[in-house]
Amino acid sequence: MRLKVYEEPKLRDPYIIVGLPGIGNVAKISADYLIKQLKAKLFVEFYSPVFPPYVLIGEGRIVELLKNEFYYWKNNRSKNDLIIFTGNTQALTSKAQYVVAEKILDRVEEFKVKKLISIAAYVVDRPDEKPKVYAAATQPELLEELKQYGVTPMGEGSIGGANGLIVGLAKVRNISGICLLSETLPGYITPSGRILTDPKAAQAILEVLSKMLEIDIDLRPLEEEVKLTEVVSHEVEEMKHPAIEEIYGISHPPGDYSYI
Amino acid sequence: MRLKVYEEPKLRDPYIIVGLPGIGNVAKISADYLIKQLKAKLFVEFYSPVFPPYVLIGEGRIVELLKNEFYYWKNNRSKNDLIIFTGNTQALTSKAQYVVAEKILDRVEEFKVKKLISIAAYVVDRPDEKPKVYAAATQPELLEELKQYGVTPMGEGSIGGANGLIVGLAKVRNISGICLLSETLPGYITPSGRILTDPKAAQAILEVLSKMLEIDIDLRPLEEEVKLTEVVSHEVEEMKHPAIEEIYGISHPPGDYSYI
Amino acid sequence: MRLKVYEEPKLRDPYIIVGLPGIGNVAKISADYLIKQLKAKLFVEFYSPVFPPYVLIGEGRIVELLKNEFYYWKNNRSKNDLIIFTGNTQALTSKAQYVVAEKILDRVEEFKVKKLISIAAYVVDRPDEKPKVYAAATQPELLEELKQYGVTPMGEGSIGGANGLIVGLAKVRNISGICLLSETLPGYITPSGRILTDPKAAQAILEVLSKMLEIDIDLRPLEEEVKLTEVVSHEVEEMKHPAIEEIYGISHPPGDYSYI
Amino acid sequence: MRLKVYEEPKLRDPYIIVGLPGIGNVAKISADYLIKQLKAKLFVEFYSPVFPPYVLIGEGRIVELLKNEFYYWKNNRSKNDLIIFTGNTQALTSKAQYVVAEKILDRVEEFKVKKLISIAAYVVDRPDEKPKVYAAATQPELLEELKQYGVTPMGEGSIGGANGLIVGLAKVRNISGICLLSETLPGYITPSGRILTDPKAAQAILEVLSKMLEIDIDLRPLEEEVKLTEVVSHEVEEMKHPAIEEIYGISHPPGDYSYI
Repeated sequence: MRLKVYEEPKLRDPYIIVGLPGIGNVAKISADYLIKQLKAKLFVEFYSPVFPPYVLIGEGRIVELLKNEFYYWKNNRSKNDLIIFTGNTQALTSKAQYVVAEKILDRVEEFKVKKLISIAAYVVDRPDEKPKVYAAATQPELLEELKQYGVTPMGEGSIGGANGLIVGLAKVRNISGICLLSETLPGYITPSGRILTDPKAAQAILEVLSKMLEIDIDLRPLEEEVKLTEVVSHEVEEMKHPAIEEIYGISHPPGDYSYI
Repeated sequence: MRLKVYEEPKLRDPYIIVGLPGIGNVAKISADYLIKQLKAKLFVEFYSPVFPPYVLIGEGRIVELLKNEFYYWKNNRSKNDLIIFTGNTQALTSKAQYVVAEKILDRVEEFKVKKLISIAAYVVDRPDEKPKVYAAATQPELLEELKQYGVTPMGEGSIGGANGLIVGLAKVRNISGICLLSETLPGYITPSGRILTDPKAAQAILEVLSKMLEIDIDLRPLEEEVKLTEVVSHEVEEMKHPAIEEIYGISHPPGDYSYI
Repeated sequence: MRLKVYEEPKLRDPYIIVGLPGIGNVAKISADYLIKQLKAKLFVEFYSPVFPPYVLIGEGRIVELLKNEFYYWKNNRSKNDLIIFTGNTQALTSKAQYVVAEKILDRVEEFKVKKLISIAAYVVDRPDEKPKVYAAATQPELLEELKQYGVTPMGEGSIGGANGLIVGLAKVRNISGICLLSETLPGYITPSGRILTDPKAAQAILEVLSKMLEIDIDLRPLEEEVKLTEVVSHEVEEMKHPAIEEIYGISHPPGDYSYI
Repeated sequence: MRLKVYEEPKLRDPYIIVGLPGIGNVAKISADYLIKQLKAKLFVEFYSPVFPPYVLIGEGRIVELLKNEFYYWKNNRSKNDLIIFTGNTQALTSKAQYVVAEKILDRVEEFKVKKLISIAAYVVDRPDEKPKVYAAATQPELLEELKQYGVTPMGEGSIGGANGLIVGLAKVRNISGICLLSETLPGYITPSGRILTDPKAAQAILEVLSKMLEIDIDLRPLEEEVKLTEVVSHEVEEMKHPAIEEIYGISHPPGDYSYI
């Protein structure tokens, strides 16, 4: 794991938002939107052999490795600053997802984070017109608090992937953690590798977050922006055909990625 | 591997029962039923990156990592106390199954366990009305002893997964070990991920165990209880589509899991 | 890796035969037949987490882990004693196949082995009535020597799996090595997991070996014996559906394995 | 990883060309052609357990492990000598691709390499009659320089496999890096495992390289040569069915490999 530390910010009783790519890209869109609206600052990024083996070409035609990133934002309206953890990929293997989550929690402990909030998708066949937001947590009190924001405690079940796992690992370390899940349809992947994103699901999450975190964010541009940006998550195809993709130096036609 | 030790019990010449989730959930149901009926006490639990990367939501809407657990029970009617090893998952990879089994056997040696009894399913196309119980063992004498309980020595073949492997590893360490296998149908998985459990198979195992271990357990509630509880083992689906499930933060609708 | 050393034999300029399970079970049948006919003695065996996670039940209803074994035989008719390496499984992963092969070669160097002879299958659509035997080697001279035994140098191509790999690794260590390949049909696997073995292919290999090694073995019982023993290699099914098989404690009906 | 160092050349401000097997074998053909035409000298080769577990049989019927190689060439016409990195395989797993790329970059730093140029394929449905060459780079200036050779900056997207990954890892180490991508069709694999190569794509790459590197290479023999040599990359089939191939000692009929 290759770590780049750009800054060591001093943060007051921070909360951390965790939003890695997943179904409908709900978590990633939410985290990116917060970073952009709050002008949060990147302070740590890391690269890892557990990420998929390819390189992205961004807007400036410059190559970029897959990575995960920590941003921070000083919240002048409340007593809790904010850390946002996101990235352009999840770890490739089950074991690596545990290892990456433990690394995040090490930093969470270092910053004495007061609350961890991860974002996930809640797959339903027919979401409400305005998607419902569910929650699971490390303690019952946290779920009680969330009711005032219109969040329903999730029923018995499970939450897969990094965004779910990290809340379970937080509990073992006695860190207060919440997973917010927004209703979405099962991820649909077109043959060319495009994933349909779910802006509405991200919007529902962001409405809850803005109240919880006492932050003022303009949510109107979201739906429009997201309509224009079809997310292509390479991981999906690569995960389906890992062997072939790993061996071949596949490059995709220009313009195939409008959102990374 | 993250270990939580709640107690270090003193046990007299203990036997250990090993029952991890598997086909028809026979082993897990049997272990859970024993724990409940005997009011066995949890003394060690562990979490591991070799378990699947998701988090469970239990009855209290609280998140819980996948884990394996040791329980103990002091048997006043016989000279052998009891350890029960179970959990809500098996390790994900072949190698990890070996590693977890070796960890269990380290503890087995520490407690000077007299006999290891693992539980497994014996898949047949048409089980008897009352499922037959088969056994394989580390020594022929053990099979002889079992005949008085109506247990048939298993023919040539193999036993897959953690519940079989641990008996093979026990033999290498000169620990007396038995694998009890109950007739069951091939596991049937519905599209929504539900696994049909086989209460009858577990009942047949428990009848043998109660005689072997000289313990008095009421088996009547079992069949009824199991009818009400359709087990959903996430592992199954996740194992079939590990790549996709690992990446996406899938959450299942509330109420989809009535037994974990 | 768990090693059991039963004896440390003194061997005169030994040759080593390597025959692990593979297509048509040609290599394994050949090695087993040699061991039986020569009454070769087991001196080292090892178990490993890189082998598949299941346990075998043999004739005595006793459990047995998967393992690899070294046998030796003192050849009074020639100046070269014999080591035979075989087992009931190959390592599960590519990387583990390299690691196991390097372990074997460490011992080969320790015993100052003069020649390594591995056995493999040569898949053709229509084998000759009497299967042809091909060879590849670490030096051209070795191929020249083999012509007197009716062995044809193999054309350009590749040999997969442990039996091929070990000859390549031998070359890097400057150990003289030969791979003998016997014509066989593509392995046919029945739905119940049975693999049709190819006794004729093994017989062709053994005829060459008996001349090369100056040993006198009766080959008549081979064809008959093999006809009676359909080999069931669990690896095949487990490799096809590793995930499911690893999790479930699958046991097969008695009598399903007549040869292990 | 087993390293063989044949020579430690002194090189003046070298460039390195990276060309491992991939789609259409564009990168490998280009690297091999350069090595042959320039009579570049092998100075380091390595074998690794992360390569596929089989052994190749070359023209002399002699076995050869899969390997990666470093060649060098002293360029008297320019101030930059040349290192060429190629091999007959890529690493099997995602993680291993990162590890191998880091090993190459360690050597790149040791030789104070001035520029890294990797070669990849750019899959399009209908390539131009003369395939276009695209590029991505670690800095915008590098792309500017390339325009004089008719190279178009690649649009947003990604480049998979070792040939793309190494440029991303170079950037993290502040090494100047370029990935040249030539238009090609999606790799076509026949049932017998043959991959159709794309000589035209390699030729387009080599034309750019000869100008960039100020080297004089005769490109006329290329097309003819490549027509005669259908590349068979075993990796493809092995990657598709890794489990089965890993276990069975598959050998292919002689003559099935005319180019390795």
